[in-house]
Amino acid sequence: MAFDPTSLRFDDKGLVPCIAQDADNGDVLMMAWMNAEAIARTLETGRVTYWSRSRQSFWVKGETSGHIQQLVDFRVDCDRDCLLVTVRQEGPACHTNRRSCFYTAVRDGEEVELMGPME
Amino acid sequence: MAFDPTSLRFDDKGLVPCIAQDADNGDVLMMAWMNAEAIARTLETGRVTYWSRSRQSFWVKGETSGHIQQLVDFRVDCDRDCLLVTVRQEGPACHTNRRSCFYTAVRDGEEVELMGPME
Repeated sequence: MAFDPTSLRFDDKGLVPCIAQDADNGDVLMMAWMNAEAIARTLETGRVTYWSRSRQSFWVKGETSGHIQQLVDFRVDCDRDCLLVTVRQEGPACHTNRRSCFYTAVRDGEEVELMGPME
Repeated sequence: MAFDPTSLRFDDKGLVPCIAQDADNGDVLMMAWMNAEAIARTLETGRVTYWSRSRQSFWVKGETSGHIQQLVDFRVDCDRDCLLVTVRQEGPACHTNRRSCFYTAVRDGEEVELMGPME
């Protein structure tokens, strides 16, 4: 069946969450948001493109930083309201310069930093 | 630093998205939502507990189906507005009886089913 981005269940702002996963080692790198046009651009260009809620504009990941995400596989969940992209991530995915945004664990009630910024 | 669930950035409905990842093989299993109390219960009991937006009630994953998620690690992202739990998943995570909710890929413009229901 042909994929139609408008068949997804967008929220009241026209967005769906998209999880980015490292295609090589399976690490979850980040979560951001896409609208229908960002999805179309991601699929067309192979460069993962989000919708920035803070800037209200398209956000071609790595366009300014060089930390691009090359699309490897694009997946839709059962409810069609969440996306998963597997990617080749150039450098850090996180704006703090860490490989993943999920660098803080909660263990025994305490926050533990799992990784520092990349060199 | 002690972790305080109320320090997270909840959306206007008091929820944050939570990604569940298989602790053994790294597969992304599903994404659902938590409120502050669901987070507290998850950390306290070690049984992953979401907030069901459709039922407007707590959802102890697997409570009726037996397909529980045992918490292995709990992570917070850089913006404190998304969670990642790594879990020991009993059976399928998806209500369609598939191991993961992300069983549909989009390849060359077509939807491709990557896995069927578990036996």
